[in-house]
Amino acid sequence: MQDIQRPEPTAPAFFDRGEMDLIYADNAATTPVLPEVLDEMMPYFSEEFGNAASAYSLANKSRVAISRARESVARLIGAQPEEIFFTSGGTESDNWALRGAVNMRKDLGYRAHIVTSAIEHPAILRTCEEMQARKEADITYIPVDEDGVVSLKEVFDGIGPDTVLVSVMHSNNEIGTLEPVEEIAKAVAQARESRGSNAYFHTDAVQSVGHIPISVTKSGIDMLSASAHKFGGPKGIGFLYIRKGIPMRGLMRGGAQERGRRPGTENVPAIVGLGCAARLAAAQLEDRIKKEISLRDRLISRVLSEIPGSILNGPSGLRIPGNASFCFDGINGETLLMLMDNAGICASSGSACSTGALEPSHVLKAIGRTDLQASGSVRLSLSYRNTEGEIDRIAEVMKEKIEDLRKIGGR
Amino acid sequence: MQDIQRPEPTAPAFFDRGEMDLIYADNAATTPVLPEVLDEMMPYFSEEFGNAASAYSLANKSRVAISRARESVARLIGAQPEEIFFTSGGTESDNWALRGAVNMRKDLGYRAHIVTSAIEHPAILRTCEEMQARKEADITYIPVDEDGVVSLKEVFDGIGPDTVLVSVMHSNNEIGTLEPVEEIAKAVAQARESRGSNAYFHTDAVQSVGHIPISVTKSGIDMLSASAHKFGGPKGIGFLYIRKGIPMRGLMRGGAQERGRRPGTENVPAIVGLGCAARLAAAQLEDRIKKEISLRDRLISRVLSEIPGSILNGPSGLRIPGNASFCFDGINGETLLMLMDNAGICASSGSACSTGALEPSHVLKAIGRTDLQASGSVRLSLSYRNTEGEIDRIAEVMKEKIEDLRKIGGR
Repeated sequence: MQDIQRPEPTAPAFFDRGEMDLIYADNAATTPVLPEVLDEMMPYFSEEFGNAASAYSLANKSRVAISRARESVARLIGAQPEEIFFTSGGTESDNWALRGAVNMRKDLGYRAHIVTSAIEHPAILRTCEEMQARKEADITYIPVDEDGVVSLKEVFDGIGPDTVLVSVMHSNNEIGTLEPVEEIAKAVAQARESRGSNAYFHTDAVQSVGHIPISVTKSGIDMLSASAHKFGGPKGIGFLYIRKGIPMRGLMRGGAQERGRRPGTENVPAIVGLGCAARLAAAQLEDRIKKEISLRDRLISRVLSEIPGSILNGPSGLRIPGNASFCFDGINGETLLMLMDNAGICASSGSACSTGALEPSHVLKAIGRTDLQASGSVRLSLSYRNTEGEIDRIAEVMKEKIEDLRKIGGR
Repeated sequence: MQDIQRPEPTAPAFFDRGEMDLIYADNAATTPVLPEVLDEMMPYFSEEFGNAASAYSLANKSRVAISRARESVARLIGAQPEEIFFTSGGTESDNWALRGAVNMRKDLGYRAHIVTSAIEHPAILRTCEEMQARKEADITYIPVDEDGVVSLKEVFDGIGPDTVLVSVMHSNNEIGTLEPVEEIAKAVAQARESRGSNAYFHTDAVQSVGHIPISVTKSGIDMLSASAHKFGGPKGIGFLYIRKGIPMRGLMRGGAQERGRRPGTENVPAIVGLGCAARLAAAQLEDRIKKEISLRDRLISRVLSEIPGSILNGPSGLRIPGNASFCFDGINGETLLMLMDNAGICASSGSACSTGALEPSHVLKAIGRTDLQASGSVRLSLSYRNTEGEIDRIAEVMKEKIEDLRKIGGR
């Protein structure tokens, strides 16, 4: 066991917050904009600020910048530039994929059917629930095993002649499970052939893009959602990849931007930032993954061996590099997080999107945790920017605070 | 008549572009982010970057910043902070208002009817057209007079028992007409009482907010769309004002952000920028208007008196301060704009959103211009940041280029 270390002095400047050296371990919620990304964005706020839809030279610089960003994003996921549509983020991309698919079916005069998993992000689940409640679509929810992996057989069996979309996330935001997307894509393709279904395969890859290698072509993905601020880009920008030839209309109507499929003045600085974050991720992916797996495994190993009554959520192997999610017996996760916050550590109970919710996490329930277990959950999502010293500090603080809470019956 | 002046040396630094001193006269398309706005945004990219939905202290700084921005925006339009919902921009706000209203009626089991004008922005018109084509709503389009003012009588007469929304823009983006929103609101209220209609009044105020005084309370506006980048804020952020008590659901589904009505991680830096732009606009409104009216009237007066065969589009009085829109006989507007661009002047033929469109402007057609007249249109949208010297230069260049084009039969 190592000595407790304060964050190493080489930690990036943005962690030096004056009052206290914060340890940021909630990178699945959001990440700081990387310095290189912000540098590249800067000229587009007040200097090269032209509306990309305008005809004059100033606007041309915006168009060129957008085009370059689109290429970088396409390259990161193995797509063609014209298959990338910039949106305001992951939520809009998810809503667009689902509603767009349902409308494709509706345009043909049929009611749509969607197959999705029980552990999707609220942007998928809430949209599905609303469409079902309003009789716009029928939804089949596929269960997951104890590691959070969707059942391939049930995905295949779930696809019927009216199924227009199978939407399964690339990796889970709470417990880090990597879903078998290639196999799911094959199951969808097989169902398409054998059952005359017109189903497409969409994946919410918000937690994967920029973190692990993705090739939509090799994996047989028809649509993919992503968000820039989850991998060092700015908030308020993301994209939906739509395979060429899918006749899906836009979620919104207006100007002719994004080849008529996503109206609204292009958010040039944010698009440039997304492009830069994509280029950096592509260039550094291997190193980032190596570092994150090493940090994550160090944390998991210390927590499981040093903190009694702790279990890991999600698989021990096939998980997103930075994710470490635990349940602790006899502990209220929210209380623990507050104590960790006081000690300068940013972590989360499940996902940022459901913070403050009184319901236990639907993901933890789906992998078989009881309500009581689920209430004692903490998610740490690490980054290659974290240090070993920070990991050790996190482990020590968690150990200490959990012991304290258990002593006083701290539920 | 004054001497031709180059832009004065006091012009903001961002107009000094190295190659040439650009004269930016397309402020209705977009504006540069103001230096104060960018300064205020900067810490939220990489330092105070917390996800506002998270529980720890870092995130609290994001929440406080959002709350402050919401208050600034509310104050600018005379609303309550809880009536402001941040969106990705004007287009999303417009789509939300229209679809939200239609869904309110649908939830009660009725097909909705919408009354709108013939000169709305594509975000309104295309959405209406789609909803009509798909039998989701019936639409009545109100004509305008030769100045672009909607007919109050036809608005009132158009409202029936199924009308759920009257949507008329606050000011027109192409020809600058200020619509009689207070009178329209009164007509809607009167129809509500006398005909048992449940109609709300929405206004697309993208060209007005931050440019002229607005009070949603005094004007009786139920919903209002706006966009930050039209008044010195960043692109990719806007808002929809929804009067308290209107039971309108969100356009999208997902996390619980914006009191459950607009999901997706809050775009903190952009929201902060919008808030700052709103504060600056509120503080400087009177001075800005005075300056813009003076510049605009100088330009209109020079163009009409010095360039034969020129007419002003839109009213001579009740127009948005910075807007000057013309049609020139025997001239192709796009060619003229190209020549102006070569001379360092950024202007537009109609709106940025329809640049490159082969169709003549629907707005110019609606006020009675022929296709030929409409093809000779140029819109200049000035800002208080422009100078008299720039205005004179614009007038001289237009005069010279139009003479040249007419000599060579330059259609």
